Amino acid sequence: MTTIVLDAMGTDTHPDTDVRGAIMAAKEYDLDIILVGDEKLLSEKLAEYAPNENLPIRVVHAPEMLTMDDKGDGLVRKARHKESKNPMAVGIDLVKRGEADAFVSAGNTGATMVTSLFRLGRLRGINRPALSPAIPTVKGHCLALDLGANPDCKPRNLVEFGKMGSVYVEKVWGIKNPRVGILSNGEEAGKGSNLVRETYPLLAETDLNFVGNVEGKGVFAGEVDVVVTDGFTGNVFLKSSEGVAKLMSDTIKETIMQGGILAKIGGLLIKPSLGAVKEKLDPNAVGAVPLLGVNGLVFIGHGSSSDHAIKNAIRVAKEAVEANVLGSLREALKK
Amino acid sequence: MTTIVLDAMGTDTHPDTDVRGAIMAAKEYDLDIILVGDEKLLSEKLAEYAPNENLPIRVVHAPEMLTMDDKGDGLVRKARHKESKNPMAVGIDLVKRGEADAFVSAGNTGATMVTSLFRLGRLRGINRPALSPAIPTVKGHCLALDLGANPDCKPRNLVEFGKMGSVYVEKVWGIKNPRVGILSNGEEAGKGSNLVRETYPLLAETDLNFVGNVEGKGVFAGEVDVVVTDGFTGNVFLKSSEGVAKLMSDTIKETIMQGGILAKIGGLLIKPSLGAVKEKLDPNAVGAVPLLGVNGLVFIGHGSSSDHAIKNAIRVAKEAVEANVLGSLREALKK
Repeated sequence: MTTIVLDAMGTDTHPDTDVRGAIMAAKEYDLDIILVGDEKLLSEKLAEYAPNENLPIRVVHAPEMLTMDDKGDGLVRKARHKESKNPMAVGIDLVKRGEADAFVSAGNTGATMVTSLFRLGRLRGINRPALSPAIPTVKGHCLALDLGANPDCKPRNLVEFGKMGSVYVEKVWGIKNPRVGILSNGEEAGKGSNLVRETYPLLAETDLNFVGNVEGKGVFAGEVDVVVTDGFTGNVFLKSSEGVAKLMSDTIKETIMQGGILAKIGGLLIKPSLGAVKEKLDPNAVGAVPLLGVNGLVFIGHGSSSDHAIKNAIRVAKEAVEANVLGSLREALKK
Repeated sequence: MTTIVLDAMGTDTHPDTDVRGAIMAAKEYDLDIILVGDEKLLSEKLAEYAPNENLPIRVVHAPEMLTMDDKGDGLVRKARHKESKNPMAVGIDLVKRGEADAFVSAGNTGATMVTSLFRLGRLRGINRPALSPAIPTVKGHCLALDLGANPDCKPRNLVEFGKMGSVYVEKVWGIKNPRVGILSNGEEAGKGSNLVRETYPLLAETDLNFVGNVEGKGVFAGEVDVVVTDGFTGNVFLKSSEGVAKLMSDTIKETIMQGGILAKIGGLLIKPSLGAVKEKLDPNAVGAVPLLGVNGLVFIGHGSSSDHAIKNAIRVAKEAVEANVLGSLREALKK
C-alpha cells in the first residue's frame, strides 16, 4: 500500500485545512496517510473532523515548528540537525527510512527544499534539484523546471531539468516521448541569453525529444510538454502569468459592474462558466509541485492551499509513487 | 511644428495601413508627417485614402526595402551604409539632420534598433539602448525596460534603464518622482539572480525613487511606475503575459460556447464589456514603444499594427517630442 506523509502544520490555516484534506484523500483514494505535527493537536482535529471513522491515517509526533521566518544559516542548521523534530525533518526522515513513499507539505517552500536536500541528498547525476510545476495550456499541461529553486543556473543544470521533466511527464502523465523546449525570447536557434545559447547544443545532443526554443506564449499554446529554464526566469514567468490572470479577471469584473443592466445580467449568466475557467486554470487543482532531483519523492503545495488542494496534492504524490518516478529517474540518469 | 517621420513600409499590410494611420493622425493632431517609402506608391495611396484633402503629409522617396529576412552582418551593412535608401535609413537620417523630430516604424524591430544605433549613436552615458513598452496595470501603466534589445545585461545597464525610464515617465506621463523597481523572483532585498543582487545597491545609491525588487504580479498590480530588467527576462515576461491573456480569453469563450443557452446569452450580453477589456489591455492602444538611449527619438510598433495603432504610435511620438524627452534625458544623464 502506498504511504504518503503529510506535513500537517503546513498551510497558512494549519492544522485544520491539512487534516481535512488528508481525511478527504483517505476516503477517496486507496492509500495510507501519516500526519506529522503536534500529536495531541492532530489527534483532536482527526476526532473532530472524522469522528467514529476508521480511516487509514496515523499521527507521528513532531513538536517543533518551521515558519516563514526560518531562513539562511538558521534554516540550514535545522534542516541538517539529526535531532530536529519539526514536521519537515520528521516527515522527510520517514521517507528516507522507507516508512513512507512520498512527503507532501504546504509549508515554507525554501525550508522544504533545504530540508529535503540535506536529509535525502540528490539523485546521482543531478547537480541541482528543480521545482517543477504543471503549467495549464490550451491543450492540457506543460511541466516547467526550474520555477524557483535555483535563481542562477549553468547549462548542465538545464540539461538535467530536461531529463527529469521528460521522465516525469512520460511516467506520470503518460505522454510518450515528450517534447522538451528551452524558454527563450524567440523560437529560432541562436536566440536567447548566453545561458540559453550554451544549453541549446547540449540538449540537442541528448536522446530527448528536444524541439528547440519556445516563447512564453508557445508554452501556453501547448507547443511543448516540458519547458526548461533557470529558476529566476521561471519564477518571473510564473508570477507574471499569475499577475496577468488576476489583472484580466479583475478588469472583466470591473467592466461588467460598470456596464449597464444588460452587462450585469450577462455577468450573472456567465458566472458558472467563469468558475469553470478558474477551476481549469487554477494551480490549486494540481495541488502540489514535485521537487525533482532529490533522492526521494517530495511535493510542495502553496501555503494558501484549500483542503481540496491538499487532497489533490496527496493524489499527485500517490500517482508519482505508483508510476515509479524515482526508479525511472535513477534509470534515465544512469545513461 | 512637430514633425514625425513614419516608415510607410513598416506594417505587415504596408503601405495601406501605415498611410491610413498617418492620415488619421494628420486629421486628429496638430503636426506634420513625412512618409518614407516608395514615392510613387505612397502618393497613389495618399490620393486613394485622402482625395482632395490638403493634409500636412509629404513623401520622401526610399526605394529599397528591409524585410524580416534582414539580420546579422547583412543587416549591419545596410544599417551603417551611408547610401542606404531603405525607409529606416532614410527616415532616421531625417531625424539625425533635424528635418524631423521623431521616427516611427512598425517594421522589423531588430532592423529598426540596429539602424537607429548606427545612424544616431547612443546618448552620452548610455551603454545599451532599451526597448521600453508601457505595460497595462490595475492602476494604469508601468514602463518596462528592457523588453528585448539586450538579452544579456550588466548591472550598469539596468541602472541606465532606471534613469531613462524615470525621466520618460515623469516627462511624458506626468508622474512626479516615479517609483522604480527591479523585476525579481521575490520582493525582499537579497532575492534575485546574480544580476539583480548586484544591481540593487547601485540603484539604491542613485537619486531615483528606487523601491527595491518587484515580482511580475506586483508590476500588474501597479506597485511601480518603472520596472527594469535584462532584455531576456523582460521578453519572457512580456510574451508569457500575452500567452496567458490569450489562454484566458480563449478558455472563457470556449467555456461559454460549451455552456447552456443561458451561458451563451450571457456571453452575448457581456461582449461589449469584453471588448472594452481587450481595448484596455491591448498593447495596440499604446501604439509604439520608445527605443530609449539612442541619440534621437525612435518608436517601434508591432508588425500587425492596425491603422488605429499607427495613429496612436504617431501620437505617442508627438507627445515625447513635445515633452522634450531627449533634452531631459541628456540633462539627467549628465549627473
